Formats: sequence, structure tokens, C-alpha cells
Amino acid sequence: MTVEPLIGDVIGELLQDTLAVATGVGPRPLVGGRLPRPVIEIIERDDGLINGAPAAHYLDGPAQWQPYDHRAVDRAHGETLDIGTGAGRIALHLQERGVPVTGLDTSAGALEVCRRRGVRRLVHGTVETHVADGARYDTFLLLGNNLGLFEGRERAPGFLAALAALARPGAQIIAQGTDPYGTRDPVHTGYHERNRRRGRLGGQLRLRLRYRELSTEWFDYLVCSADEFAALVHGTGWRLTDVDDRDAPYYLATLRLVG
Amino acid sequence: MTVEPLIGDVIGELLQDTLAVATGVGPRPLVGGRLPRPVIEIIERDDGLINGAPAAHYLDGPAQWQPYDHRAVDRAHGETLDIGTGAGRIALHLQERGVPVTGLDTSAGALEVCRRRGVRRLVHGTVETHVADGARYDTFLLLGNNLGLFEGRERAPGFLAALAALARPGAQIIAQGTDPYGTRDPVHTGYHERNRRRGRLGGQLRLRLRYRELSTEWFDYLVCSADEFAALVHGTGWRLTDVDDRDAPYYLATLRLVG
Repeated sequence: MTVEPLIGDVIGELLQDTLAVATGVGPRPLVGGRLPRPVIEIIERDDGLINGAPAAHYLDGPAQWQPYDHRAVDRAHGETLDIGTGAGRIALHLQERGVPVTGLDTSAGALEVCRRRGVRRLVHGTVETHVADGARYDTFLLLGNNLGLFEGRERAPGFLAALAALARPGAQIIAQGTDPYGTRDPVHTGYHERNRRRGRLGGQLRLRLRYRELSTEWFDYLVCSADEFAALVHGTGWRLTDVDDRDAPYYLATLRLVG
Repeated sequence: MTVEPLIGDVIGELLQDTLAVATGVGPRPLVGGRLPRPVIEIIERDDGLINGAPAAHYLDGPAQWQPYDHRAVDRAHGETLDIGTGAGRIALHLQERGVPVTGLDTSAGALEVCRRRGVRRLVHGTVETHVADGARYDTFLLLGNNLGLFEGRERAPGFLAALAALARPGAQIIAQGTDPYGTRDPVHTGYHERNRRRGRLGGQLRLRLRYRELSTEWFDYLVCSADEFAALVHGTGWRLTDVDDRDAPYYLATLRLVG
């Protein structure tokens, strides 16, 4: 009797509602038709684990950011591509600082939120589809845990090749990751172990996002140690030049284009 | 490849973590092993709709309550059974006022949270299993939307019969419900229509609750108008004597034992 959720623009709907709740403008979900409902992002893992997280952080200004976000944006220079820009918090800040920044996202709804918030340069697509547009960059940002977009061993080389195709000489990638292996929670350590037995990286999560009636397809999202990340980059056109883990388990990995 | 979640004491785990986050005592989920994760209750409907709601409200003291909760506890008198007591917010308050109150819940973990918060009289079970314990009551409370426990046309007569078996002469039931029909959101109006075509009440929700790796079984939970509720009660040993809808769409229905 139960029905699978619709596939749709989860992040777009989520961010549009988050903006509506924050600004009080536009339609938004209400409890009992009366009280505003806080917007919660739901993250489902393929072992049945499910977590909800308040979505308001997508709109956070620099005053609410974690310290590593500040150190990341301080490293951005030249033409900058904010990959998985979401509600545009990073792109907005760089734009205000005068850094020429473009926000890239696969979510049309997210880009609409960015536009309403004032982000001027936006691209709808993936790093691969964006290559044909002709724009080239000095800095690629993968913040808000978007090192996860490397997915795993299969996807990483193609992702890095697309970034190389988008890169100007001497370009850098700054990616924020989280080392997942500090936990002793058997829900997580057991998942890591099952992943490894299947030839996957321990923290190669199989996820889908859900919001109200919508779901994404299942996708891989990589949560790995800096050592695992170094191994993924090894032998590609990029070199890992720095790992800033002052806020461990969170870290910033910096890659440089070789040659 | 994806796995169904484990069946377990969702509300118990959720409330234990909520208490741990609120008090800073005991193990609780952390983001990246470091930052406390807000506890979110996830409610999945059988049409694929999913919502997350922060769980902290289960611990709310009277200062944070909605006005109808205050009006409900003001009507409680004599031996009182708080049905679906959860984290015991209602039972604690009545106990402090000197009302002899018992908290009833099917969740062992919820009762442990009640015990730690100081609720003295607790029963693990359903209204049916509690009949054999011999206790009898003047007031039954179904607050926090627990009118939902009537489930629908099939369950309501048995539920009311069990309450009659637990009742002293002249006993009352005070149940808080929500009229779901004010919405024009097609996600909800379509659900109501499909329910009616299947012979169910429009707001007879088929739900399961999820928290981390755990899920409940699917169950019915009734969100109905006061008129629908009146029809459910008609012809039973109880009479609907008052509907307080000053905070519509929320309302308090009061039933009296007949004869």
C-alpha cells in the first residue's frame, strides 16, 4: 500500500521554503495550516539510517560559519567556481568581497534562491556540462562538505578531469571534508566495514535526500579521511598540496593543477 | 541494495536523546563526532510524504505550551490517566499541582525518560492491557494531538470501551485534535480524497515514525474534524459534551461517561 516518494528537486524545494520561512515572504509549509513549520532536510542512508537536520544553516551569513569556512574563502582568488552553491552563502560573500565568483548547482530551485538573494553569476549544470560553456577558473570551491561530490574511486578521476578542463593554469581546488572514522557508534562502524567488504571506501555513503513528497535518486556521497582523499588524487592532473585539519574531524584539502 | 529500517522503540530512543541533548548528560548523537546534533522526529506517511520536526517540544514546560494545553490541564480532576505520556510534560505538571496522575505509554524508553524527569506513577502498556491492573480514573487526557490514537472508525469503539472499563462513574475524556481540512495543499487534499475513496476518514493518516536506524510499524493516526469525532463517539458509552475550538484548527473535545 505504501508508495515510493516522487523524484524531484529536493534541494530546490527545501531551499525555497527555507528562504520563505526566513523572510516571511511567499508560501511555506504550516503546521495545522497555522504555525510555520521549521524546514528540515531529511537524509536517508541505504542501511535504513535516517537523519533530519534543520535547513536554516544554508542561509547562514559569515558570522554563523565554522572557522574552516572563513579560512577557505580567504584562500579563494581569481575567477572562482562555487560548486554545489546551494543557497549561495559562499558565493554571496565572495561577491561582496569583489571576488569574481560563479555559483554552480544541479538544482534549478537552489539557483532561483541564489538569484533572489542577489548572486549574480549562476550556472545550472554539473562540472562536466559546464566545460562547454567556455568559462575557466582559478579557484574551485567545494565547501559545506562538498568534498563528498568526489563520490568514491570510480567517480573521482572523471570529476578531477572535468575540473582540469575548467581550470586556468595554476588553478586550485579547496574542498571541505569530514573524517568519519572517529566514531565508535556501531551504526557507523558497521556501515564502514560493510562498505569495505564491497570494495567501497568506508565512508562512501549511499544516500537520498527527502523533503515533503519529494526524493532524490540514490547517490554516492564521500565522507573520507584526508589520507583516503590523497590516494584518490594520486596520479591525476592535480596534486594535494595542503590539508588544514585544525578543526578536526573537519578539514580543508587544497589541490593544485600540475604543470 | 537498500535495507528497510529496524523496527524498534523510536519514541523511546528519540526522547532519551532529546533529554541527553537538553541536559548535556549521557551519550547522544554528534555531527562528525563533535557537534551535538539536534534531535529530529521523522514522520513518514504512506504516500511518500515525509516531515521532520524538532523533538525538543516534548520537554516543554508550561511556559512554552499552547493555550489549549493549559485549558486542558485546568479541566483535569481526580485520578487522571495521561495517555501517551511521552516525556511526561503533562503528567509532571499535574503532579506538581497535586493532581493524582499516572502516565501511560507503550514506549519503555519514554517511561524511562519520565522516570528520570520525576514522574512517579507510570504504566507500560495500552489502555486495554491497563484494565487488568485494577486502577480506575476520573479523567483521561489525550493531549499533544493524541486524539489521533482513536485511529478511525474501526478502532474508536474498542478504544472508548477500554476507557469505559477504566473509568469511574462520571469520568471525562479530554482529547486534543486538529482539524486537517483547512489546507488547500494538494499533497494533503489529494490524500484526504484517496482515503475517503477507500472508506477511511479523510485525515486517517497511515504513518510510521523513524529515528536514526529505527522505525515503528505502520500505524493509523487520526486527524479529523470535531464533527467527524462526534460521529465516532455517537452510540458509544460516552457523550461529547464540549468542543473548545478557540485555537482552531486545534481543538479540545470533552467526553463524559454516560449513565
